[in-house]
Amino acid sequence: MNGFEPVELTRAYLLLNHGPTVLVSSAHEGEQNVMAAAWAMPLDFDPPKVLVVIDKSTRTRALVEASGEFTLCVPPREQAEAVLFVGSHSASARQDKLQVSGLQLQSASRVGAPLVQGSLACLECRVLPEPHNEQRYDLFIGEVVAAWADPQAFSGNRWHFPSDGRRSVHYVAGGSFFATGPGFVVPGKE
Amino acid sequence: MNGFEPVELTRAYLLLNHGPTVLVSSAHEGEQNVMAAAWAMPLDFDPPKVLVVIDKSTRTRALVEASGEFTLCVPPREQAEAVLFVGSHSASARQDKLQVSGLQLQSASRVGAPLVQGSLACLECRVLPEPHNEQRYDLFIGEVVAAWADPQAFSGNRWHFPSDGRRSVHYVAGGSFFATGPGFVVPGKE
Repeated sequence: MNGFEPVELTRAYLLLNHGPTVLVSSAHEGEQNVMAAAWAMPLDFDPPKVLVVIDKSTRTRALVEASGEFTLCVPPREQAEAVLFVGSHSASARQDKLQVSGLQLQSASRVGAPLVQGSLACLECRVLPEPHNEQRYDLFIGEVVAAWADPQAFSGNRWHFPSDGRRSVHYVAGGSFFATGPGFVVPGKE
Repeated sequence: MNGFEPVELTRAYLLLNHGPTVLVSSAHEGEQNVMAAAWAMPLDFDPPKVLVVIDKSTRTRALVEASGEFTLCVPPREQAEAVLFVGSHSASARQDKLQVSGLQLQSASRVGAPLVQGSLACLECRVLPEPHNEQRYDLFIGEVVAAWADPQAFSGNRWHFPSDGRRSVHYVAGGSFFATGPGFVVPGKE
């Protein structure tokens, strides 16, 4: 897997536990798409599950519903402009969205949805169908079937961002983000 | 409201959008409790809703189910030791949990669950009953009925953490956190 090393499935929650903004990728019948989501988080450890909110207005929603699959990738700060772009434009209205974003995709291992190259980490997910949640709340539950990380950013089940450009990000609003800041350990737990 | 100013309900999502770890407070029949949750996020803007995962093994679960209410507070780094403590000990096993944690509580405005003094922000929530989600996934949906922030950390619908000790935190595992790092704005959005 180009640029990524596998992460143990039972540790996949560590990739999202600190609440980073993610890219949601999807594919169906030859069409691929990527959107941004600040509303994604772990739901369970083992088997690992995740939650993500995917609005009905998005093209991603149609692709996820049709394929039953998606990936969540954790973008680095150096991709923040692309994150904002794919989070602000729908492929329904702008068919060159992906090309203009500059994001490069690669094949995943167990789902048809692609991975975003240059991500800090990626989770391959299969939708656990919950029609009431999907219709009423735009809320999707995915079981994580494979997990990957850039070993320079996450290895040995720990994050260790190698540079400011390769730290994860946390979206606020209006094009404004926080970078993930310094790590610290509570006294007695070092 | 001692130490807090109101936040517009339609902007309450901004208090959680960057994915901070939260404290979940609850109360029923004179009993109060506080636990930590890394798995909480916004679900909708207006009316604002939030998601939080509350395990069946926690005392908080019983209090939230009995009262139909909870609060989510965003703790500052200076409370990280207490966050870890209340996230590692159950009030079922340790009845002096709250006292030992050092956290001080105050009354909320619209729910019986308390607010944690010194928080950066707090959301008062009423459970929107979804028994299937609660039983199967330990997943609770809350409608936000009031929102508060320390005006030194959040005002004018923007975060502006006044000091390192008063930044929000993002739990990883094993007593390890990230602080919320520097804010930045994507070019063209300044």
